[in-house]
Amino acid sequence: MIRFDSDYMAGAHPEVMEALVRTNLELTAGYGNDPYTSEARELIRKATGNADAEVMFLVGGTQTNATVIDGLLARHEGVLAAESGHIAVHESGAIEASRHKVLTLPHHEGKVKAEDVECYIAEFYADETYQHMVAPGMLYISQPTEYGTIYSLEELAALSEVCHNHNIPLYVDGARLGYALAAEDADFTLEALSRLADVFYIGGTKVGTLFGEAVVVNNRSLLKNLFPLVKQHGALLAKGRLLGVQFATLFGDGLYERIGAHGVRLAMRIRKAFAKAGYEPIINSTTNQQFFQLPNTLIDSLRREASFDYWGPRGTTESTVRFVTSWSTTDEDVDRLERLLDKERRRE
Amino acid sequence: MIRFDSDYMAGAHPEVMEALVRTNLELTAGYGNDPYTSEARELIRKATGNADAEVMFLVGGTQTNATVIDGLLARHEGVLAAESGHIAVHESGAIEASRHKVLTLPHHEGKVKAEDVECYIAEFYADETYQHMVAPGMLYISQPTEYGTIYSLEELAALSEVCHNHNIPLYVDGARLGYALAAEDADFTLEALSRLADVFYIGGTKVGTLFGEAVVVNNRSLLKNLFPLVKQHGALLAKGRLLGVQFATLFGDGLYERIGAHGVRLAMRIRKAFAKAGYEPIINSTTNQQFFQLPNTLIDSLRREASFDYWGPRGTTESTVRFVTSWSTTDEDVDRLERLLDKERRRE
Amino acid sequence: MIRFDSDYMAGAHPEVMEALVRTNLELTAGYGNDPYTSEARELIRKATGNADAEVMFLVGGTQTNATVIDGLLARHEGVLAAESGHIAVHESGAIEASRHKVLTLPHHEGKVKAEDVECYIAEFYADETYQHMVAPGMLYISQPTEYGTIYSLEELAALSEVCHNHNIPLYVDGARLGYALAAEDADFTLEALSRLADVFYIGGTKVGTLFGEAVVVNNRSLLKNLFPLVKQHGALLAKGRLLGVQFATLFGDGLYERIGAHGVRLAMRIRKAFAKAGYEPIINSTTNQQFFQLPNTLIDSLRREASFDYWGPRGTTESTVRFVTSWSTTDEDVDRLERLLDKERRRE
Amino acid sequence: MIRFDSDYMAGAHPEVMEALVRTNLELTAGYGNDPYTSEARELIRKATGNADAEVMFLVGGTQTNATVIDGLLARHEGVLAAESGHIAVHESGAIEASRHKVLTLPHHEGKVKAEDVECYIAEFYADETYQHMVAPGMLYISQPTEYGTIYSLEELAALSEVCHNHNIPLYVDGARLGYALAAEDADFTLEALSRLADVFYIGGTKVGTLFGEAVVVNNRSLLKNLFPLVKQHGALLAKGRLLGVQFATLFGDGLYERIGAHGVRLAMRIRKAFAKAGYEPIINSTTNQQFFQLPNTLIDSLRREASFDYWGPRGTTESTVRFVTSWSTTDEDVDRLERLLDKERRRE
Repeated sequence: MIRFDSDYMAGAHPEVMEALVRTNLELTAGYGNDPYTSEARELIRKATGNADAEVMFLVGGTQTNATVIDGLLARHEGVLAAESGHIAVHESGAIEASRHKVLTLPHHEGKVKAEDVECYIAEFYADETYQHMVAPGMLYISQPTEYGTIYSLEELAALSEVCHNHNIPLYVDGARLGYALAAEDADFTLEALSRLADVFYIGGTKVGTLFGEAVVVNNRSLLKNLFPLVKQHGALLAKGRLLGVQFATLFGDGLYERIGAHGVRLAMRIRKAFAKAGYEPIINSTTNQQFFQLPNTLIDSLRREASFDYWGPRGTTESTVRFVTSWSTTDEDVDRLERLLDKERRRE
Repeated sequence: MIRFDSDYMAGAHPEVMEALVRTNLELTAGYGNDPYTSEARELIRKATGNADAEVMFLVGGTQTNATVIDGLLARHEGVLAAESGHIAVHESGAIEASRHKVLTLPHHEGKVKAEDVECYIAEFYADETYQHMVAPGMLYISQPTEYGTIYSLEELAALSEVCHNHNIPLYVDGARLGYALAAEDADFTLEALSRLADVFYIGGTKVGTLFGEAVVVNNRSLLKNLFPLVKQHGALLAKGRLLGVQFATLFGDGLYERIGAHGVRLAMRIRKAFAKAGYEPIINSTTNQQFFQLPNTLIDSLRREASFDYWGPRGTTESTVRFVTSWSTTDEDVDRLERLLDKERRRE
Repeated sequence: MIRFDSDYMAGAHPEVMEALVRTNLELTAGYGNDPYTSEARELIRKATGNADAEVMFLVGGTQTNATVIDGLLARHEGVLAAESGHIAVHESGAIEASRHKVLTLPHHEGKVKAEDVECYIAEFYADETYQHMVAPGMLYISQPTEYGTIYSLEELAALSEVCHNHNIPLYVDGARLGYALAAEDADFTLEALSRLADVFYIGGTKVGTLFGEAVVVNNRSLLKNLFPLVKQHGALLAKGRLLGVQFATLFGDGLYERIGAHGVRLAMRIRKAFAKAGYEPIINSTTNQQFFQLPNTLIDSLRREASFDYWGPRGTTESTVRFVTSWSTTDEDVDRLERLLDKERRRE
Repeated sequence: MIRFDSDYMAGAHPEVMEALVRTNLELTAGYGNDPYTSEARELIRKATGNADAEVMFLVGGTQTNATVIDGLLARHEGVLAAESGHIAVHESGAIEASRHKVLTLPHHEGKVKAEDVECYIAEFYADETYQHMVAPGMLYISQPTEYGTIYSLEELAALSEVCHNHNIPLYVDGARLGYALAAEDADFTLEALSRLADVFYIGGTKVGTLFGEAVVVNNRSLLKNLFPLVKQHGALLAKGRLLGVQFATLFGDGLYERIGAHGVRLAMRIRKAFAKAGYEPIINSTTNQQFFQLPNTLIDSLRREASFDYWGPRGTTESTVRFVTSWSTTDEDVDRLERLLDKERRRE
């Protein structure tokens, strides 16, 4: 069985695992007060070009979003996000559980437009009853989005500008950031992102680590007292150095880039394989998630040897499905998928 | 200046005020442990036809919604509501402040359709990732709605049925319930509402009292320990008997019905006056709020002698406005409005 | 039956009630945007000697404490308070319901000592694990305390100094402030309190109004966006002018002082009556609450004609009881109590 | 440098690490829907003797306590705990952050007495104002306690009885449970604990795993919908099988017992070494934490070659310190400590 269900099916990239094994018996202080965490912090500061950034390591994406958003918002504020955004849909109400409303914007293949943000804010304050409504207090976007699409540098700059014109921070969820950076059409860099976003996080769980997300706070005045906030959100890892060891490995020797490039290359091979079989992707994703509308008969045949997820409910005759790659996907996996698709084509 | 801005511009209906004055120097126990509150509770039990109902008096609408919804939902659940619902728009995030997400449904002149509720729940549980999303845990509707429209008995029964089929409670916000009961097309009664809704509240603030909302819990097993919950939400009035005195007056001698009838009759007069001037209401509201699309020139002229609110932003040439009546609106107020409209018509 | 159970047993002081009746049929804008609220705000600014103070009117004490504390604290901070403080004991967890821990200090007849605050903060930051604990983010005190005692000007100044040395705000709960100002040993004034406290509230519910508490924010930079915060806490009264009318009456013509003086004078008469009967108060309260340790036999006798509360559980042979006066207590009430005590003495 | 600072200074026990490496490249479903998690769940059900228990794996202790307590309490309830309990002191307000008050009880070397629980509940409901206070809704204890002491079977049975008499659940924090089970004076078993506690957790972080705590819900009706609750609390690990793999290793072959025994044996050696040097432990801990009152001169000398924590602030001439062992402590570490102590003794 070849598996394309998600990018968190394996453990850690072998180099990361090796580092964990190598350091396993060392004794260090807890909660991130260890040399590996310091090293990882410095490597990320260097990679993002911001020597003054606060860098904090958390375990998972939902807790990272809940903690950062809770820290950035005032009591009466909510967070603007695409209606397809992870925080709006798939976090079991974690944002509301820390008392904040998610204010939704229309999405365009998962992306938010600067003009929609501008318009939301303008209409909000034009309404005489605005003090009875939840004020837009920050903007959340994902890079890449939940649909695998990426914001161009120009789009990021426009979003950053509209946010800063209105004095609200821009926060970027980078759960799969490595795959966005590696996309062929990516014209942004980690440095650029760091200049434009007040806070963002570099995802590890889906890009090579066992777990872990690195929050980068570029605008430190916006998010003070992060340590007790992280602890309060239950997001502080006792053996914090595990996060340090993993991120130091990712950022020490170009591994983060290599993983991103690998995942994207294989996703593009999958895209071509389906195109050859007559199925263009339904969303123009240039990252490690690919979405296709396939006949149910084809889905059923493929599923005998390959696993992948439905994207939404199964339709009557055809359905949308998602194929995901990661560092753990191999060229052999895609070769096998190609052969399966060829076999199906010949059968028709 | 004649005023149609809202239904909370005056103090209390004179009969209510008289009762407050009459009882003012009496000394009674606090927090609702007084004979007036007991009397009001019994009168409401009688009016709703449910001798076993729990009846609890709170001060205002937002705190009532926040308290009841917080009490009805489990931690992982959210509240279904029309996207135009008061809790979704105009409560400054009070529902989220008690950690619950508002799950929005499309609205039809402010109303929610049973089939949309059914569809939401069906699609929710059909999604394989539903455990990562906020489960629909109750339904919130307003009777009348924020647009002045009312649910028919059949519609209420359908909503009640879909809720109970899916084992979630139906909660009705009756901030302006008196005006819904008095609507010409109202085919539901307080008893019927009480049979169909698990919890609802009878609004006082907009229907004759200085303040106060009476929560009726028909299904008591769903909402235990209401007293400490009300206290925790800051919604417990020290001199609780003020609520008892006011509601006993409203429900002791048909005053609640009389107020509703008065407000609706004057709203219908306003509707006719505008129709005669060539402006049909843009929403078919049969209660005390009337919405019109008027030329800005007419709005500006009228506003020299009458006050009323924009409903949304002012347009370029015309805008939507709202006229609201209450027990304190007089026939003379509407006479004057008619004369203003006549004058405007002649001027054209 | 003469009643000394609490200071919220009657309605409003007759002058307040008269103002409510006089203005009852006027139509004004809601939510505090009315001339009466403006007038009351100005009167309070004048009375407190701070022309720049933000003054906001809320309905009740618990909601006022919860709203102000929520607004003053950062996410990772808690509120320091006497272990006997209202917020620590009698608010059903309203502070925790807005996510903040109450950090308790020992009390001395209800009062907190500046040195205990100093010590708490010093020990907190001396602990190497302090980032894992809830940081002291503000100090809450009551004036008078829950035991009827009052802070001297020197004590208030010391508390203010320790707070400001450590950069945390001082908040004073003035639910019964009128009775503290009138105490014979009171050497502080409203102006002094206003200079020393960052935020405090002037209680109305127990000092002449039907309901209502006036929050005075002296340090406005600490508590921005109060309006939506009040709304979110369900503490915004629709007919906000009711609060304005009442507080304008209290502060327009010295009524607040007169009520305080009346309540305290009668409390002192009660104190003397008990002393004459052989019972000194167990707490040196100079305000409107008096506490005595009485034989159960005496309690039972008195209770046939007078009502008052136990303070804690009933003991085997004697128990602690509380007698409370207010504007509504009369000299005749105390005369009757004196006669009851005389009769009891003769019986022995 | 020999290190006795805490029991979370190393990575995972070598056998656990080996299992993680062995399974690293396997592809499995996320969020705990994998065979390793199922296997671990079954092994724990077997070890606890409750085939019907719900077993859920979370990442860390604070998030586990916050999630379980949030799930067990009704809105108006708080959690009873020793004033020295971890949730009362060292979780940065995580319990309050989910809106619940911690109600503290006196502690006796970290332990709560059944009679104190009984007394708290009795006094609570005897107070006429109890509806204004936070109701005791569950009991939290730690086994072993934060002071290393353990509850006897009799004490656990008494606590369980008082809880169940009052219809509140008993929850046991077993962050270091392995070391309690291995204590010489331990007369309770995992099966007994499982019979007496409604919910408890078996700590992994301090007893052999990289991270991870296994929640055992014996009384499933008390804690439904745990999955979305865990997700909402940000405590759901994407690669859930990492928890399964680690706990299956701990419980597959007696490793959990072996680790507990090892840690306790070395702690007892440390105890003897200090006794020989003239320092009896200040708390009678029979588990892996040992507390001593030492002269500052001795502390300073030892610290040149050994690391360990102060327990509270450093005193003027002597201070309390803590020595902790774990699976990663070696006999050689303790040999060296003995030699250090001998050397110090000779120097005197």
